[in-house]
Amino acid sequence: MQAEIITIGEELLIGQVVDTNSAWMAEQLNSMGIGVGQITSISDQRGHILLTLHEASARADLVLITGGLGPTRDDITKATLCEYFGCGMVFHPPTFQQIEQIFSRRNIPVTELNRQQALVPEACSVIPNDRGTAPGMRFERGGKIYISMPGVPFEMKAMMEQHILPSLAALSPETILHRTVLTHGMGESLLAEKISAWEDSLPAFIKLAYLPQPGIVRLRLSAKGASGEALTSALEQKVDELKSIIPELIFGYGQDSMESLIAARLQAKGMTLVTAESCTGGYLAHRFTSLPGSSAWYKGSVVAYANSIKQDLLHIPEPLIATEGAVTLAVAEAMAQNVRRIMQSDCSIAVSGIAGPDGGTPLKPVGTTCIAVCTPEGTFSGSYLFGQLRANNIQQAALAAMNLLLKKL
Amino acid sequence: MQAEIITIGEELLIGQVVDTNSAWMAEQLNSMGIGVGQITSISDQRGHILLTLHEASARADLVLITGGLGPTRDDITKATLCEYFGCGMVFHPPTFQQIEQIFSRRNIPVTELNRQQALVPEACSVIPNDRGTAPGMRFERGGKIYISMPGVPFEMKAMMEQHILPSLAALSPETILHRTVLTHGMGESLLAEKISAWEDSLPAFIKLAYLPQPGIVRLRLSAKGASGEALTSALEQKVDELKSIIPELIFGYGQDSMESLIAARLQAKGMTLVTAESCTGGYLAHRFTSLPGSSAWYKGSVVAYANSIKQDLLHIPEPLIATEGAVTLAVAEAMAQNVRRIMQSDCSIAVSGIAGPDGGTPLKPVGTTCIAVCTPEGTFSGSYLFGQLRANNIQQAALAAMNLLLKKL
Repeated sequence: MQAEIITIGEELLIGQVVDTNSAWMAEQLNSMGIGVGQITSISDQRGHILLTLHEASARADLVLITGGLGPTRDDITKATLCEYFGCGMVFHPPTFQQIEQIFSRRNIPVTELNRQQALVPEACSVIPNDRGTAPGMRFERGGKIYISMPGVPFEMKAMMEQHILPSLAALSPETILHRTVLTHGMGESLLAEKISAWEDSLPAFIKLAYLPQPGIVRLRLSAKGASGEALTSALEQKVDELKSIIPELIFGYGQDSMESLIAARLQAKGMTLVTAESCTGGYLAHRFTSLPGSSAWYKGSVVAYANSIKQDLLHIPEPLIATEGAVTLAVAEAMAQNVRRIMQSDCSIAVSGIAGPDGGTPLKPVGTTCIAVCTPEGTFSGSYLFGQLRANNIQQAALAAMNLLLKKL
Repeated sequence: MQAEIITIGEELLIGQVVDTNSAWMAEQLNSMGIGVGQITSISDQRGHILLTLHEASARADLVLITGGLGPTRDDITKATLCEYFGCGMVFHPPTFQQIEQIFSRRNIPVTELNRQQALVPEACSVIPNDRGTAPGMRFERGGKIYISMPGVPFEMKAMMEQHILPSLAALSPETILHRTVLTHGMGESLLAEKISAWEDSLPAFIKLAYLPQPGIVRLRLSAKGASGEALTSALEQKVDELKSIIPELIFGYGQDSMESLIAARLQAKGMTLVTAESCTGGYLAHRFTSLPGSSAWYKGSVVAYANSIKQDLLHIPEPLIATEGAVTLAVAEAMAQNVRRIMQSDCSIAVSGIAGPDGGTPLKPVGTTCIAVCTPEGTFSGSYLFGQLRANNIQQAALAAMNLLLKKL
């Protein structure tokens, strides 16, 4: 099955909003074995919408449409779909009930404009919107499927996950299963070289996708076939093989993140974590405290950006910094040990580095970073050399630091 | 002039990469008065590229193309452009020199594959790529302009800014000038209501665009006309009027950010800043330390997530927290005063709040946040109620805190 995506909205064409919906939808469809041939962004203009629908349906079997379903005058997707499918609008009571519920929760009266959101094209089957007032719509004509969704990402995603992807999966006689392996510490092309023999050994029914994020490469295995059990065992075997080839690079699976894995292990052991940050400047603390409930295991951080703070709050002896500078394993280790003691925590992480663009020397270029972690078992540390870009160095340092702790927990 | 954007690359269609290039290009073109009618993402397939070029040029006068210019087999944009414009390839010595330079800087030998990057379609004029090996190309046919650029964002942006936007601006007989006003503290629709009379008073040659970001609404005024001087004075007058209508909401102009404004004012006064963060959990420190050179004015932070850290490191008296909890103006003020004294700084910011999803009470729901700042002039504080979403509350709290300091500097 081949799909196309059409996103409708003036905000996309004036650069006000980056279209993140399309990449998300494309990843979902691809993971089900449905290829996406084209993504088209257009504005709320009747003629242009009609033309784009026409062109897309000439190439694809499935057309996903987002946007233009709001209650204001410039939202004309619904009326244009009526025109395209040659039908009128009908009132849809369940949708109106959902609108009334949302408004009563917010204590706002339902206006005539809102009531009109419960009008839907006669030719469609309605897809419930559990998070908003604009319903989704599914049309079929000439063996092609058209699905229209709201453009608000969190409404669209919930609708896709709960109502659309399962129905698309049911269209396929085959089962599709995925395993995603998360790696850290090697770039995409080097990693691809390292696992090329394993990749070549994959059977034809298992496809591999490299999904790189800054500092992390996700490897997604997708298996397609008649028997779910056979797929599961084939996937397990291939993941086991991968584990034996790159054990040091794998840190998690599926929806894991380094901070969520750290959180789970600390909570299982009833332990707490604190941090002392120089070059990461609070970014590690921010990553940990972005997790709901992190106050159960994360106590706090000293962001010791100035050396005086390293001395006064973290009790790093002045001579230790004066001799070789603040970016040494000795300073990082002392920061980790002291913050752990001062904040009375079971574990700690400390990072000291040169994020750039200034501050580099021939011996310690920009990107040089020293990381130390303490657990009840002891202190562990390492030096790293990242790149030239400040934002990237901060992110890489945080990932390397979290991964070092993860390996010791 | 009407434009279309075509982005080429399999990574866009499998959801590996979000297309951020298009929004950036669309904003640049719009700010010059060039509307974008359609954005199309397709993969590296000859027939599909030819069809898309054909369809786009039927609707637009200017077609911007990114991607597919790399040295590997799947990059076929250049060969396909030769086919579209009916020409062959020629060797372009200045491009080859640029490739040699980049490789010698990295100490890598130039391969035959890299040499081929210096081949360009005969029908194009070459646009230099100052940041990479793939040159840009400009074609003209039948009064239409086609520009092909690399898909790597930082190469594309430099090429647009240095070589393409100036040449497009020169095509217009009119001058276009912009002023962007940055506001904080009111959502887009309320703000639009508040300034509607002023918006209605704008002359026809000045257009207003609302550019919302989380917590911030940018108002971009674009004036178009023959005389640069007349445009400048008309823009100044309208911005002055706006200042008198919403003085409390405006915090900056153009490319300003709250942290860059704080940095500039602190450095001008030779002052330093420290922070004490509870609910923002290091995010404020991260924002400040993301600025290159921030060590000149930012000394550090105590992220006091656990109440024990507030007591031990920030010396907040236990009874002060026990009586009414940690989210009070009194606690925020004491955190700001104490961190300023402990870290020996001129200024400080402290934030204590309930980011959610847990921890809310009927009296202090999720989103409740107390903020205090200290300057040599004294302590200033305020309570805020943000929303339900944790990530959003952290961001809103940081913005409100920075804005409070900014107003006092």
